[in-house]
Amino acid sequence: MRWSGSFVRDLLNCAIMAIRIFITGGTFDKEYNELNGELYFKDTHLPEMLKLGRCKVDVDVRTLMMIDSLDMTDDDRAIILENCEKCSEEKIIITHGTDTMEQTARVLGKIMKDKTVVLTGAMIPYKFGSSDGLFNLGSALAFAETLPHGVYIAMNGRYFNWDNVRKNKKTGEFEEIG
Amino acid sequence: MRWSGSFVRDLLNCAIMAIRIFITGGTFDKEYNELNGELYFKDTHLPEMLKLGRCKVDVDVRTLMMIDSLDMTDDDRAIILENCEKCSEEKIIITHGTDTMEQTARVLGKIMKDKTVVLTGAMIPYKFGSSDGLFNLGSALAFAETLPHGVYIAMNGRYFNWDNVRKNKKTGEFEEIG
Amino acid sequence: MRWSGSFVRDLLNCAIMAIRIFITGGTFDKEYNELNGELYFKDTHLPEMLKLGRCKVDVDVRTLMMIDSLDMTDDDRAIILENCEKCSEEKIIITHGTDTMEQTARVLGKIMKDKTVVLTGAMIPYKFGSSDGLFNLGSALAFAETLPHGVYIAMNGRYFNWDNVRKNKKTGEFEEIG
Amino acid sequence: MRWSGSFVRDLLNCAIMAIRIFITGGTFDKEYNELNGELYFKDTHLPEMLKLGRCKVDVDVRTLMMIDSLDMTDDDRAIILENCEKCSEEKIIITHGTDTMEQTARVLGKIMKDKTVVLTGAMIPYKFGSSDGLFNLGSALAFAETLPHGVYIAMNGRYFNWDNVRKNKKTGEFEEIG
Repeated sequence: MRWSGSFVRDLLNCAIMAIRIFITGGTFDKEYNELNGELYFKDTHLPEMLKLGRCKVDVDVRTLMMIDSLDMTDDDRAIILENCEKCSEEKIIITHGTDTMEQTARVLGKIMKDKTVVLTGAMIPYKFGSSDGLFNLGSALAFAETLPHGVYIAMNGRYFNWDNVRKNKKTGEFEEIG
Repeated sequence: MRWSGSFVRDLLNCAIMAIRIFITGGTFDKEYNELNGELYFKDTHLPEMLKLGRCKVDVDVRTLMMIDSLDMTDDDRAIILENCEKCSEEKIIITHGTDTMEQTARVLGKIMKDKTVVLTGAMIPYKFGSSDGLFNLGSALAFAETLPHGVYIAMNGRYFNWDNVRKNKKTGEFEEIG
Repeated sequence: MRWSGSFVRDLLNCAIMAIRIFITGGTFDKEYNELNGELYFKDTHLPEMLKLGRCKVDVDVRTLMMIDSLDMTDDDRAIILENCEKCSEEKIIITHGTDTMEQTARVLGKIMKDKTVVLTGAMIPYKFGSSDGLFNLGSALAFAETLPHGVYIAMNGRYFNWDNVRKNKKTGEFEEIG
Repeated sequence: MRWSGSFVRDLLNCAIMAIRIFITGGTFDKEYNELNGELYFKDTHLPEMLKLGRCKVDVDVRTLMMIDSLDMTDDDRAIILENCEKCSEEKIIITHGTDTMEQTARVLGKIMKDKTVVLTGAMIPYKFGSSDGLFNLGSALAFAETLPHGVYIAMNGRYFNWDNVRKNKKTGEFEEIG
């Protein structure tokens, strides 16, 4: 029945409106230190990016760490997992460096079965003119709203399941393993 | 069974890789004419935006028209509908001015039942520094890949069903009608 | 004598550090109204631009009007002239729409003989990605610091004397009349 | 006499139209390597920046080297000096890393007495959203067109004589020594 479908859809629309966003650093949030010419982390640009996208999804942004994903340890991944488990939202986005994103996805994927977790990142820092960050954030939010429970990576306009994804180091693109 | 789920998901990943993008104009593609100070349409920026997003989804971009959506006629909407019906892809994105996006969605929504059609646009032209266009394109692609058959509007990081959406003229945001 | 030259140069460096900037509007400061799709004036972007340029010149920015130069009247030009005459600084920059910049330059040039006045503007609004505004502002400041008393237009990386300049309506570039 | 002044000015306008630009690298031209996350040099952005500024000055851009100025040797500076001496233009702009710009200025300043040489650079790479590069280029061109023979640094909207300038390492700004 038509009204019934609408009703279900409205409920659905309502339910998807609460998304937790965990910040872990990565290229996404790197800035240029004009005094020493090095890249570094200051604050996350996520709130600014959500505003630019005129995002009206009910999100709660929390910074867990601000590190290069090449420096991410098992302990760091345990912190991310713990936060995913204990947060009240059923939908979670994690911003993450692309170099070890697949490793964190595997740690989460083996445990997180009753929430939708989407890892995303950027190849170019948001503060640089030609970043893919805003595009990736838009797709990550949409994937978090629509995909069934599970752990995914959202990059290159696509989503990948946690147990079938790797970053191609030569092209910088994500792809299925098998 | 685990492998079975993977198998289905892989098939799904494969199937979603072909998306048709129809360009109709709208704020998305407006440019500034520096000789007379007016906004106008030249070419679409979609290919450039997809490249910036490092999009690896298999898309086919076609320009149907380049108009302000306030100037869109019933004939124009008939052209859009016809193209949606006859294209081979099952997933379609339409870039569209926001002012009458809901009207075109209704024309398509009453007829298009066996494809996933996502209309999207921008509040600020892509060529201007602070556009929401790249964010919206990222979310529209993700929604086209994941939502069931039907006609939707993707704006503000959310999706709306064709029969329950309107643009709030005061805030510039999209919202459910009821 | 060497020290004498240094001394004179230091005095000069000191003297050039006070520049008055008068804002009159023009393409420079146009913004995009996302609710109605029209270009309009809100506040000037000059302070933001000076900060971006890490400008350490001692400037005092005053907004005289915020109008399209096609709408500028004789009364408006009288206001600009009066402000140029009565301000204490010997060096003045005026941001101005390019369409009638040459007319204002002539009004000022006939009277202002004991100050250096540089009019500048932009072909593309500063808020749009590809503006020439920052480049023009940098050159206008340098011309104001170095040119002898007189009234000039600074556009296209060049300066023009008030009595020998026009905007080529076809190319959008400034050129000598004769 | 009025016509006489015009005549001289026209000659002057004509003479300033040939400027040689030497590229040596520096922050100006650094890019972000998205495969390894490091900053590197590819090609100079000067032609693109001149186009953005709608620059109509007759410039000739030559790349001498593409290095970080911290890596610049005495031999490199000898190459820069030699090129300044032998080029036919009387007005020269050198893009240069800011860290050792004052050293190169001193090497040139002791020898170059019959040309106007302006060194400039940027605190933030041009390809990053918030660069001061376009502003500095605009001012460097204007200073090259108007300053008497000598060697100068153009930064922060100001010019400095080669024998009285240093970069303040704490603030990143250029200042007089004494």
